[in-house]
Amino acid sequence: MRAADVGDPVMGRLVRSQGPGAAVEAIRKGALPEDFVAGERLHDHGPTRVAELHRRFQAWHARLEIADPAADLETGHRTGARLVIPGSTEWPTQLDALGHSRPLGLWVHGSADLRFSCLRSVAMVGARAATAYGVHVAAEFGVALSEAGWTVVSGGAYGIDGAAHRGALVGDAPTIAVLACGTDICYPSGHHELFAAIREKGAVVSECPPGVHPTRARFLIRNRLIAALSRGTLVVEAAIRSGALNTAGHAVSLGRYLAALPGPITSEMSIGCHKLIRDRNAVCVTTPEELIELVGLIGDDIAVPVRGPVLPRDALNEPTRRVLDAVPSRGGAGPASIAVSGGVDLTTALSCLGGLAAAGYVERVPKGWRLRRGQP
Amino acid sequence: MRAADVGDPVMGRLVRSQGPGAAVEAIRKGALPEDFVAGERLHDHGPTRVAELHRRFQAWHARLEIADPAADLETGHRTGARLVIPGSTEWPTQLDALGHSRPLGLWVHGSADLRFSCLRSVAMVGARAATAYGVHVAAEFGVALSEAGWTVVSGGAYGIDGAAHRGALVGDAPTIAVLACGTDICYPSGHHELFAAIREKGAVVSECPPGVHPTRARFLIRNRLIAALSRGTLVVEAAIRSGALNTAGHAVSLGRYLAALPGPITSEMSIGCHKLIRDRNAVCVTTPEELIELVGLIGDDIAVPVRGPVLPRDALNEPTRRVLDAVPSRGGAGPASIAVSGGVDLTTALSCLGGLAAAGYVERVPKGWRLRRGQP
Repeated sequence: MRAADVGDPVMGRLVRSQGPGAAVEAIRKGALPEDFVAGERLHDHGPTRVAELHRRFQAWHARLEIADPAADLETGHRTGARLVIPGSTEWPTQLDALGHSRPLGLWVHGSADLRFSCLRSVAMVGARAATAYGVHVAAEFGVALSEAGWTVVSGGAYGIDGAAHRGALVGDAPTIAVLACGTDICYPSGHHELFAAIREKGAVVSECPPGVHPTRARFLIRNRLIAALSRGTLVVEAAIRSGALNTAGHAVSLGRYLAALPGPITSEMSIGCHKLIRDRNAVCVTTPEELIELVGLIGDDIAVPVRGPVLPRDALNEPTRRVLDAVPSRGGAGPASIAVSGGVDLTTALSCLGGLAAAGYVERVPKGWRLRRGQP
Repeated sequence: MRAADVGDPVMGRLVRSQGPGAAVEAIRKGALPEDFVAGERLHDHGPTRVAELHRRFQAWHARLEIADPAADLETGHRTGARLVIPGSTEWPTQLDALGHSRPLGLWVHGSADLRFSCLRSVAMVGARAATAYGVHVAAEFGVALSEAGWTVVSGGAYGIDGAAHRGALVGDAPTIAVLACGTDICYPSGHHELFAAIREKGAVVSECPPGVHPTRARFLIRNRLIAALSRGTLVVEAAIRSGALNTAGHAVSLGRYLAALPGPITSEMSIGCHKLIRDRNAVCVTTPEELIELVGLIGDDIAVPVRGPVLPRDALNEPTRRVLDAVPSRGGAGPASIAVSGGVDLTTALSCLGGLAAAGYVERVPKGWRLRRGQP
């Protein structure tokens, strides 16, 4: 975990082919196992690839020289984090979908069981420079998802992430913040209290050992964990260049659901969302229920379709509606002319007019009949 | 046109099977042609259907008794409208897609040639109780479409319709208002000046003879003309029960393009649009260019994809980016530690640091190197 960059698939393959102990030994000795090199050569592009392999291996060697795994474990435990590795009971097996870039382990700090929390989980991500609209909606969705028993996974950043976590803390389900730095580092520092609240009811998670600071590359590679830990990802707000779109890309390539929340076309912060709907086939989601329906189990979590109110007018039968449409709003018209313009016979017109008057739709005036103001 | 309700498909079939003159004669005599009844019976549901046919025929007869076609033509011409019928050079042949509910004729009042205007046309429809957002966007789209040579077709109502027409009047292309009442009736009355401006550069159109007032049924049946006259329909804002959704339905069943404009999920007036995107596969459109690309000819009208700015940082090569990511923002770090954490060798780190300092990304401090504030 100290030797390679997070998510390095070459390290993933080395550990898988040699086992973790032998991999560490090889890096420490500075000798690349021959069968591994042969395997890499088989899958890749010849000489340049091998030169790059050696460069990478040297970098790992240099980093391992100054690494102190015992101290990392000690710092982790002292600061409250436990190391969860593949095969342990708390390991979220959906991370296996990441293949060779699966993390070597995760530092988890919080009361929630990571594996259990992620069984029913949704990622909500978005812009740090979110608008008031985005923050409002992210918080509302966070509350509703958590109250419906869904874990909200996000990145703990300012803006959409923070609002989603805050909303989720209202409900009973845990919320998970996946960081791009050690779990003992509070980044952003303004989220000190938020992270404390998340640890109490959920967990703060990272593949970076304690003390590691966030970098741009670590943010991007972290995003694959947010996507992989969840059944689907909702992008709440995203400018045209937003890390959230990177998370969305991971969700798609991992075969997870992708949803985007629409917003005003005049808002820079919704451009990315609309682009996902247009170009990436993201599902346009407008209520928490629609999101749950998307990521939930078929039959279990169906959203009630949005419907308008049934107006009294809808309940009128066909001839009555025709008569009502033929009654003028000003002046007045006699039953015979109403019958002709409504396309019904006189008897029908008279009987319908009586019913409509009783129900308050029309009234008698000197010139005949007209619509009543303030109809039902 | 006076005898049947607008868009009555039975009248459409009668005129088609007997020819217009014989159809009028039959209605006047009150005798349904036997071959026509047989044809209707063939295509429909037996006795009830025939009883309904006779009821309808009687209603036509009663209306025709009091109709005065010569006076209609005279009133039309006196108020400035011409009657355009199928087969005349100004007839927009795309209306033939309406089948038996194709209008028997259209009253056209305005300087524009209806057929020519509708060759490149888009419908923009939406709520009367539009929000400031909807009105703003409808006007912007109207301007852009008209300036790009596209005719905007709409319904002349308050709200979205009015804003779309007003925007369209800014450009050079004509705009077409399709009314649910006679072209001599100004409904809504507040659009008196707007209709005058539309007639000057475009046309006000209706299938209702002069003097006919709008009814709820006429609004709904009018909507099929808006959809049929255009290559596609954009719904700008629509509540869950909106006439615009009816127009959208016509667009789909006529095989026209359907687009919807997203908005805040917190706005009642965007619920209908989002529903169209989710349930009816409407294309999510966020710029006039995207709309033109949708309805335009392939290859001719391609929208430039929305892209973010290219940041200077993107132009850095891979090792330089790794080194930059390894430079701390506070304190400072020596080249050797930067090399290790960036995963490059010392020579590479030193050369990259030199370049980054020259470009203003990093600066030398007593403890080594750190990021400069206000990097490019």
